[in-house]
Formats: sequence, C-alpha cells, structure tokens
Amino acid sequence: MTQKLPFEALSVETLPSRLGDNEALRAKIGKDTSAWKVREVGDGNLNLVFIVEGASGAAVVKQALPYVRLVGDSWPLPLKRSFFEYHALTRQEERAPGSVPTIYHFDEAQALIIMEYLSPHIILRRALIEGRQLPNIARDIGLFMARTLFRGSDLHMAARDRKADLALFADNVELCDITENLVFSDPYFDARMNRHTSPQLDGIVAELRADRDLKVEAQRLKHSFAANAETLLHGDLHSGSIMVTERETRMIDPEFAFYGPMAFDVGMLLANFWMSFFSQRGHEQSGKRDAMRAYLLEVTVETWVVFRAEFSHLWRTERTGMLYQKSLFEDQGDRLGAEQALDHVLHQIWTDLLGFAGIEVHRRILGLAHNADFETIADEDLRASCEAKALKFGRHLAVNRRQIHSIDEVSTLAALIEQESSI
Amino acid sequence: MTQKLPFEALSVETLPSRLGDNEALRAKIGKDTSAWKVREVGDGNLNLVFIVEGASGAAVVKQALPYVRLVGDSWPLPLKRSFFEYHALTRQEERAPGSVPTIYHFDEAQALIIMEYLSPHIILRRALIEGRQLPNIARDIGLFMARTLFRGSDLHMAARDRKADLALFADNVELCDITENLVFSDPYFDARMNRHTSPQLDGIVAELRADRDLKVEAQRLKHSFAANAETLLHGDLHSGSIMVTERETRMIDPEFAFYGPMAFDVGMLLANFWMSFFSQRGHEQSGKRDAMRAYLLEVTVETWVVFRAEFSHLWRTERTGMLYQKSLFEDQGDRLGAEQALDHVLHQIWTDLLGFAGIEVHRRILGLAHNADFETIADEDLRASCEAKALKFGRHLAVNRRQIHSIDEVSTLAALIEQESSI
Ligand SMILES: Nc1ncnc2c1ncn2[C@@H]1O[C@H](COP(=O)(O)OP(=O)(O)O)[C@@H](O)[C@H]1O
Ligand SMILES: Nc1ncnc2c1ncn2[C@@H]1O[C@H](COP(=O)(O)OP(=O)(O)O)[C@@H](O)[C@H]1O
Ligand SMILES: [Mg+2]
Ligand SMILES: [Mg+2]
Repeated sequence: MTQKLPFEALSVETLPSRLGDNEALRAKIGKDTSAWKVREVGDGNLNLVFIVEGASGAAVVKQALPYVRLVGDSWPLPLKRSFFEYHALTRQEERAPGSVPTIYHFDEAQALIIMEYLSPHIILRRALIEGRQLPNIARDIGLFMARTLFRGSDLHMAARDRKADLALFADNVELCDITENLVFSDPYFDARMNRHTSPQLDGIVAELRADRDLKVEAQRLKHSFAANAETLLHGDLHSGSIMVTERETRMIDPEFAFYGPMAFDVGMLLANFWMSFFSQRGHEQSGKRDAMRAYLLEVTVETWVVFRAEFSHLWRTERTGMLYQKSLFEDQGDRLGAEQALDHVLHQIWTDLLGFAGIEVHRRILGLAHNADFETIADEDLRASCEAKALKFGRHLAVNRRQIHSIDEVSTLAALIEQESSI
Repeated sequence: MTQKLPFEALSVETLPSRLGDNEALRAKIGKDTSAWKVREVGDGNLNLVFIVEGASGAAVVKQALPYVRLVGDSWPLPLKRSFFEYHALTRQEERAPGSVPTIYHFDEAQALIIMEYLSPHIILRRALIEGRQLPNIARDIGLFMARTLFRGSDLHMAARDRKADLALFADNVELCDITENLVFSDPYFDARMNRHTSPQLDGIVAELRADRDLKVEAQRLKHSFAANAETLLHGDLHSGSIMVTERETRMIDPEFAFYGPMAFDVGMLLANFWMSFFSQRGHEQSGKRDAMRAYLLEVTVETWVVFRAEFSHLWRTERTGMLYQKSLFEDQGDRLGAEQALDHVLHQIWTDLLGFAGIEVHRRILGLAHNADFETIADEDLRASCEAKALKFGRHLAVNRRQIHSIDEVSTLAALIEQESSI
C-alpha cells in the first residue's frame, strides 16, 4: 500500500507499478496496468501532473514535490500543500457542485491526488491568448466565487466549524508566505527573484518603487490578506487555474487555499482578465483583436454582475451563520436592514478587489511569476508597451480604489489606457 | 500527582490535601500544609478563585468549572478556557513585562492556574465606583494594550509563529461564541437572557432595537471581530479584569483571549471608563463626583494618547514582521511612507474602537452581563437615568464613528449628554 511507504516522487515509468493496486484508479481506467499509458503534463511551477490512460478511461494524478519544481531543491516547499489542495477541492465541490474535478483518491503520505481527467478542457489562459471567446466563463466563475466565498464564511457556516477549519488551513503557512512576499512586497523593491522586461520598463519600474501611495496601499492590502480570515479562498484563482471547453468551466489547483478576505479571489481573477486585455495587442499577428478586447471587458463586467447577484441571492436565502442574523432584521420586519448590511459588505468587497487586482497585475509583470499572456509576446518592445499599460492601470486601481464606483468605470479606464500611444 | 487524575473541582476543604504536594505552591507559601488558610473569593461569573495563605506567603489558585458558575450546570462551558487563559498570560508577560500576575504553575487536566496573589490590589471597577482617582492607570493600561496588540501581530511576529498561535487559539470557540452573541447580537433583539432596568428603559430599548443603522453597525463590528484575526487579544479587558493599587496596575483573567482586531480591546476598555463616567451620578450620596467625572474623561484621553504614542514608538523601532516592511520604506529612504502607513493603521483602530466601545456600553445595560457601576445604584430611576445617557452615548459612537475625529470630541459629547436633564 502506497500509504505506508515514505514519500517518493512518481515517474512516468514507476506510476503503473506504484499505483497499480489502487482501487479507485483501477475502477476508473481499467485493471490491466500493462495497458496504462502515462504522460507527465505539469506545466505548473510546483508539482507533478500525470495523465494516466487505461483501457476504460483516464485520470489525472497530481503529486507534490518537497520543493518548488520550477526552481529545484534549493527552494524547499512542504508536501502538505497537497493536503490543503485536497481539502479545498472537497469543500469547493460541496459549496459549488460541479465546479472542480471529481476526486477519486487522496494519499496524504505520497502527497498525491487522483482526480478526474478534464478533457478536452484546456487552460483558460491559453484560450484567451488564442483569442477564443468563451460564452460561459463569466457566469461560471462568478457563480463559483459567490458560492464558495459566501458559503465558506460566517455568513453561512456554523462559527464552530469555520474556526476549526481556519485552524486547519492556518498551517498552509509556506504557501501563504509565497503570496505574502511575491504578490504584496517583492514587486515594490529590488527583491532577488524579481525580473521585468528590461531596459524598456526600467523607468516605470523605478517610478512605481518610489510611489509612496502605491506601496502603502499594497501593504494595507497585505495586512487585510494576512489578518482578515473571512472565508476559505481558492488562493490562486487566475486564468491558469481554470480549465475550459466551449461550454464548461472548472477550477483546479487550490493548493494556496486558506482563510482570507473574499475580495482576494475576485480581485486576482479579474486582474487576469484585465491582463489578458492589455496583452491582446501583442497577439495580433493573425488579425486584429478588437472584438476580443471588447469581449474581455464584457467578461469582467459580467463576472462581477453575476458574482454580486449570486452573493445577494445567497444573502437573502442562505444567511444562516452568526453574522447579520435574521433575528435582528427580517425577524423584526426589517428587510431593508439586511439589504443595507448587504450593501456595506458588497461595497467592501468591491473596494478591496480593485486593490488586490491592481497588485496582482504588478506582481505578474515585476515579480517572479510572470504569465504567458505577456511572456508569449516575442517582440520585447511590443511586450513592454503592453506591460507598461497594465502597470499604469494596476497603479490606478490600487491607489484610487475607494473613488471608483462601478465596473463600467474600470472598463472605460482600461480602454483609455489601452489606446494611449505612448507608454 | 494531580495531573494524572480526572478533573475535580477544588473546594476550600480539599485544596490543601489536593495541592499539598505541588512544589511551586509549597515553594511560594510554605511546605506546612496544616498552616495553609484557604478562602474562595471568586466574584467572577465563570470560575473558582481561591486565595491560599501559608507560613511564608500567599498565592491564588484559579480553577475553571465545566459550566458557567453564575448559571450552573445548565450552561456547560469547557475547561480548556483555563488553557487559553494560561497561554494568554504567558504571552502578555512576554510582550508587556510586569503587567500580569506571575504564573507559578499550570495544570491542564485540572484546569487550574496557580499565580501570584495580587495584594493589596483591588478590582479597578470597585475603585472607580468608590470615586478613587488612580494616577497611573491610563499610562499602564495604554502601554499594556499597545505592547500586547502590536507585538502579537504581523507587525512584529514571524508570520509562521502568528499563524500557529492563531490556530491554537481558534479552539477557544465557546468563549468567542459568548462574546459574539452576548455583545454583538442579543442586546438588539428580544434574546432570552437579556434584562434591563424596567419599565424606565423600555422606551429607549425599543428605540434601539428598531434602529437600523445601529444594528447594521453592530453586525459589521461583529464581522470584524469574527474575521479580522489581527492580533492576540485579551478579549475581556474591562475594569473588572484589572487590579490596582495606588501605583500599580495588573491585567487579569484573559480567558477570552483569541486572535481578533486590535481595536476590540481598546474599545472595550474605554467603554468601561465611559460607563464609569455615566454611572458617577448614581454614586453621589457621599458627595459630588464632578472631579471624578473630569478625572475619568482625562483617563480616557490619556489612555488613548499613551496607546497611540507607544504603538507609534513600536512601529518605528520594532516593526520586524512581514507587514509594512522597512525594505519598502525606510530602506528606500522613505521614512514618510512608513509614517503614512502608520496613520492609516491608527485611523482604522480609532474608527473601530469607537464602534466596539458603543456596542460594549449597550450590552452592559441591555444584555446578560451587567456591571457593578450601574448595578450598585439602588435607586432605580436614578440608575435608569444614568443608563439611558450611556445608551445614547453608545449609539452615537457606534453609528457616527467615522465622523468623530478626536478623543476630545468624545469627551465633549460625553459631558454634553451627561448634563442633559431629560433622559
Ligand atoms: N484534472 C485535470 N485534468 C486535466 N488536466 C489537468 C488537470 N489538473 C491539472 N492539469 C494540467 O496540469 C497542469 C498543471 O496543473 P496544476 O494543478 O496547475 O499544477 P501546479 O500546482 O504545479 O501549478 C495544468 O495547467 C493542466 O494543464
Ligand atoms: N491574581 C489574583 N490576585 C488577587 N486576586 C485575584 C487574582 N485573580 C483573581 N482575583 C480575584 O478573583 C476575582 C475573580 O477572578 P477572575 O479571574 O476575574 O475570575 P472569572 O474568570 O471567574 O471572572 C477577581 O475579581 C479578583 O477579585
Ligand atoms: Mg499550483
Ligand atoms: Mg473571567
């Protein structure tokens, strides 16, 4: 039994013999291990991901490594991130059924999760780079966020359960540490692992690092990220953590899950749409991307509208937690009191998500973990021009987030900056 | 060894035989148990407190019971609150040396703490009811709060240590539940255990329970209390949890300790000074209390000034945590960036503490746990008049907290309401 052996990384060669007696896997893909075909497809930065195909089906085996895959042994990272990913997936499935891959098996000692092989799904980021307009992503992701964030908070859960779960996820400290440093701090000083398109961006980078208001906002957002344990977050909800077909949308890879502010997931997600928007200019070799840009802004609007509508619906129908209890409002005949409180809660999420979004844009261009939207633009001047616009946009959001009132204003701002000729 | 036996409540009679072989106690008060004199002095609502005097000294033995002492078996409450009290005391001693009783021994299974007997200290609330003006309380309590709240947060601690500690204290769920219900919700609807001076206050109670803005604020504050795990709080820092002599001030009884917003301790504490202020009119049999009222307002001002000064000092000298890192400000030659961030953090504490203070005033007059400041006013009309003023004051603070800019304004408001003739 794998469970009893010490951790050992799987390989394409050893997987069939090591997992050949796993009942869940056999049931799913077929018992004849000699027919199993294995390939490793992990394009992520951290873990191994195998696709295993047998006579009667296929599955994904994801295994953590005791270090950061992208970097190697020199950056150790605990295996327990797999434990948190597993527990986050089960909670997300419960709170937003159908939104994540089905889990077949979890082996804590081997830090591996056997799960549904999403096919023919591709990573959303890739689809957006290719200029594909997917009709359902805004609705699907908006619903996912509203349901997981609402139902994982004291708005819905029993306080005792949430506190116990919070204690469980508090141990995901190494992955929180990555976010705390790489997202909120490193981009704003000369941190060791930073990189940016140089020399084109040197000027604006220096400007941002000297921007007091921006840095103060970034740290206030970090303060909220670290202290405000409002709900169970996905923690890494960008377009590289979402797999899509024309009609279906699934969220994967919640290994950064922990209790944080609701606005964080929403802000990171929207930031990735906005980065896609600013990167489109770099992908116009095969034709103009005007329609794609318009589509992307519509997606941000619809995502927020759907999120807000679903969150409000859950507020009115599933507010069973200890916060804003009905005994104080509806039960006293004061429905409008509950609506007033909802407005406050949504306003807070809105204000904070703009901040998180701005910071996320910056770290993807100035920090360690860049994203393919910009990275795949081969022409460095063109890439830098796209990136510079995104940086300015991010700065505006982060610093002015309390003065921006609607998602339409953000669309207008994005379009305005995008059309500037000078960086 | 007591540690190995199942929990059993101590009594005045059994204490010497049960703790007679406890080395810490013997060392402190003398080995001859036949000379030990024991009395039970617990005036609190929850636990047993014994004073044990021996030939060479005295000590306090505090033991939790598996239920709420005030109510009895019908309201069970876990023994582990003693564990949290012990761990909070050790952290407070570390962060604010000399501010809490010295701990001699802790026995988890028996839920008992053996600690320094504070003598001739009396409970601060009693001193204030008697009209005593203590010269050092504002400074001592201001320093205690600044030091414990700052040093227990990500402003100072290593993030990993804080997250581990947060997980530990997340299990103090039953005591959090008491605060969550009794402080933030019950006062605002017809909850079972509520009581108030009746019929005199019936009118204003009905008014407050119909006050939408107030209830929404109370719940927003509850949201912050429950989600914003900023630092290790005392959790019950009122004038009944502080023991004083003319020159010395000690904080006791942190069994409600958990990770919450900094402003909570500060707000609860100041609320208790303000309640003392409004209750003085009920204690004028033996002479006018004008000077005492002036003193109490000075105490609130000085407490906040000392808190702010010490917090700012620690910000400048001990900001070693992951938030607002020097690498982003001072190390880039931007001292003013750090000052700007400090202003934001203090502003948030200020705004929230006014809210927590307002709610604390309400729950002490409308909820289950009243306080002696008002309760000892025998004349019910006089008591109701004092309470009504405090209720109005609390409502004003909670609802207008974002529009109140200085502690002097609060003093002016308190004096104005106090001098009104009609309730
Ligand atoms: N359930 C799945 N079905 C199909 N492909 C998957 C699945 N899970 C992961 N993948 C593929 O593996 C890649 C890496 O997975 P991911 O969970 O993001 O790993 P990492 O944590 O290392 O970033 C994904 O980008 C996707 O292409
Ligand atoms: N260390 C101490 N020294 C002297 N008296 C104490 C000490 N601790 C508690 N007391 C007395 O016992 C009373 C109850 O203690 P407290 O810790 O507040 O108990 P509870 O948790 O039940 O409220 C206090 O009000 C005080 O009079
Ligand atoms: Mg990952
Ligand atoms: Mg107590």
